[in-house]
Amino acid sequence: MTTTQGAGSYRIVAMETHDVRFPTSRELDGSDAMNPDPDYSAAYVVLRTDDGYAGHGFAFTIGRGNDVQTGAISALEPYVIGRDAEDLGALYKEMVYDSQLRWLGPEKGVMHMAISAVVNALWDLKAKRAGKPLWLLLAEMTPEEIVELVDFRYLSDALTPDEALQILKNAESGKRERIEHLKSAGYPAYTTSPGWLGYDDDKLRRLCQEALDQGFGQIKLKVGADLADDVRRFTVAREVCGPDYPIAVDANQRWDVASAIEWVTALKPFGPHWVEEPTSPDDVLGHAAIAEGIKPVPVATGEHVQNRVVFKQLLQAGAISYLQIDSARVGGVNENIAILLLAARFGVPVCPHAGGVGLCELVQHLSMFDYVSVTGTMENRVIEYVDHLHEHFTDPVVIENGRYRAPSAPGFSSEMHAESIAAHTYPGGEVWRNT
Amino acid sequence: MTTTQGAGSYRIVAMETHDVRFPTSRELDGSDAMNPDPDYSAAYVVLRTDDGYAGHGFAFTIGRGNDVQTGAISALEPYVIGRDAEDLGALYKEMVYDSQLRWLGPEKGVMHMAISAVVNALWDLKAKRAGKPLWLLLAEMTPEEIVELVDFRYLSDALTPDEALQILKNAESGKRERIEHLKSAGYPAYTTSPGWLGYDDDKLRRLCQEALDQGFGQIKLKVGADLADDVRRFTVAREVCGPDYPIAVDANQRWDVASAIEWVTALKPFGPHWVEEPTSPDDVLGHAAIAEGIKPVPVATGEHVQNRVVFKQLLQAGAISYLQIDSARVGGVNENIAILLLAARFGVPVCPHAGGVGLCELVQHLSMFDYVSVTGTMENRVIEYVDHLHEHFTDPVVIENGRYRAPSAPGFSSEMHAESIAAHTYPGGEVWRNT
Repeated sequence: MTTTQGAGSYRIVAMETHDVRFPTSRELDGSDAMNPDPDYSAAYVVLRTDDGYAGHGFAFTIGRGNDVQTGAISALEPYVIGRDAEDLGALYKEMVYDSQLRWLGPEKGVMHMAISAVVNALWDLKAKRAGKPLWLLLAEMTPEEIVELVDFRYLSDALTPDEALQILKNAESGKRERIEHLKSAGYPAYTTSPGWLGYDDDKLRRLCQEALDQGFGQIKLKVGADLADDVRRFTVAREVCGPDYPIAVDANQRWDVASAIEWVTALKPFGPHWVEEPTSPDDVLGHAAIAEGIKPVPVATGEHVQNRVVFKQLLQAGAISYLQIDSARVGGVNENIAILLLAARFGVPVCPHAGGVGLCELVQHLSMFDYVSVTGTMENRVIEYVDHLHEHFTDPVVIENGRYRAPSAPGFSSEMHAESIAAHTYPGGEVWRNT
Repeated sequence: MTTTQGAGSYRIVAMETHDVRFPTSRELDGSDAMNPDPDYSAAYVVLRTDDGYAGHGFAFTIGRGNDVQTGAISALEPYVIGRDAEDLGALYKEMVYDSQLRWLGPEKGVMHMAISAVVNALWDLKAKRAGKPLWLLLAEMTPEEIVELVDFRYLSDALTPDEALQILKNAESGKRERIEHLKSAGYPAYTTSPGWLGYDDDKLRRLCQEALDQGFGQIKLKVGADLADDVRRFTVAREVCGPDYPIAVDANQRWDVASAIEWVTALKPFGPHWVEEPTSPDDVLGHAAIAEGIKPVPVATGEHVQNRVVFKQLLQAGAISYLQIDSARVGGVNENIAILLLAARFGVPVCPHAGGVGLCELVQHLSMFDYVSVTGTMENRVIEYVDHLHEHFTDPVVIENGRYRAPSAPGFSSEMHAESIAAHTYPGGEVWRNT
């Protein structure tokens, strides 16, 4: 087990950025209570080396402002040009702790998502050079190497480096078998495709049946715009899926504390598997109050949680029963490893957010690493799946019988086809020119 | 009392932005434990109307990334062009709830600071049109008009519109006398000028004496880089200022929970007036644990707190004894009014962060509004003052006997001299061309 395959001597010599947008609002795909008209977008970055490799990464946005996000990525160019991409613990921390850029967060919002995009591109590069899919590259690193990737600042009241090392060491046993199991059986998925608010009941019914037919073990419905609508839609979904099938609901930050408790109480008879993003992603104490108020319905959150410090508190406060990492919002692979370790320390299962553009492609690697090297289990864990826009990626996710197949191609599955980038570049690409 | 003076019929017809940077790192002004080499900067915006008015605003940054911040402000241009600037409650909420831009926060980081800059420019414009300094314009609005400016989403578990209205109504009595008192006596200030980490002991001693001579009732020292240094510097400051003079300390997010408690315990013999930013601004529970661990030393925080939702929790958790608003990080005047009302509800005094470039100029208006219309008192309250860069503003703050004089010129005191903007524009201005 080594991480230096393909390293040799090389330097990153170029950074390209692209403002890539898909006109998804035309079809109401992705519509929810807070995001009625998203145009799924990627602030996309390519890092090229002097020996011919390229690492790809992106921040996901939903349209307007993708130019701002792309500009923030460009501001990181001085950090990577002339560098190799081997010590990603050090390079990640250099970007996070830039003494001037840090003021723009710290560690949140546009500037932090830019770091995420670059860090993920560096990992794509590293995995491609190693000739391995990212999940396997990470799985084969030693516990000591993994701990070096993590920034423990602000975590020590919940997780120390020694405790993290112990979690990883405890998972060493059986690692090889779990790698083989992943390769043969994949990782369980759930689908949000039936549940968008913009769909009518017939479409909901048809998509619920398709989810069952395709072998998904869970679906999710968007809620929070209108309670009567939610009751009707949950009724339809229960009719199709049966009384015991896991159906989660997602309010996308729509409620205050009291209204969350009231609304979820009205949905309790339908047995929601979890309630996702009931309120502001910044409101740790609000999530805790809601969790207490809707017991035993579990609370899930994370896709908009800005960094490990907020996740730490959600865990400390007992506010969440499921932790939903996002691959491209916090500081990339490195910070997500910190979050996986925190979740393991508190015994809370990680069920990633995905969808958008490319988020399924990325996050599968992190759940698979979690399974092999951190928790050793898939029990009570599922990765979100949404069937949008995968055709634009060179190594798209493959879902078989409701499970993610373990990627085998080298890299982080983050590379988009050059033609897709060109056609969807905003505002000059052909998709946008013709509107 | 009316808010429509000077309104007439007009439209905003142009938005200009400027990337303005001051090379302050050359002198170690502003150096602290996390920000060793800031170049104080403004992502600056001017909104021009078809009848000849101009509103000025800015986001404060410390150098690199100011171009990204400026670009984020430009992304808001569609919201203001063609609009009047009278209903600032509605316009503020439109920007915060843009269904696509919101993904870049929500309500945090670069995009939220951009909203802050534009909102503050709109208030500057409104106050100029009304022919009044902003604090007085706000002070003369009715409680009902003030409540309309606030976004109560995510606050209702701590502050409802009715409760906010009651706070404002309770302060109606004596308003006119307080306005007159402000005009004659000003508002108390404290100074951070002696305390930057980059200064040697002789400079510290000299600046402490100057603070006393100038009538300041409090100073603040930066701490957190080296404990022995902090003990030595606190000793020097106590020698000059005497045993009972309020000396606050500011760690600028340097510590984890345990190290904060340990470090502050070592400084306890020197009687710190408050401990500012002991840890991550995102760590509500960490601040609460530190507050408990360093009793009776009070905790202060806020300059990096991203929005009202985090302030709400700091108050709910009893984590802070002083709340430090910043004029240009949260969503401008509107969100700061929400935060002033929250603080009043919890009985926590607001002692604003200032310094940087233009932050003193802006935030004085908010404390003065707090005094006249919200809490009715200056007791236990001070506004930070740092003597940097005021000469670049057309209506600079005036400090007399350690107090801010109430501004009398129309507007938000946010306008920079055109020559200052030109000379410090990055990278083309003469200050930067000659380096």
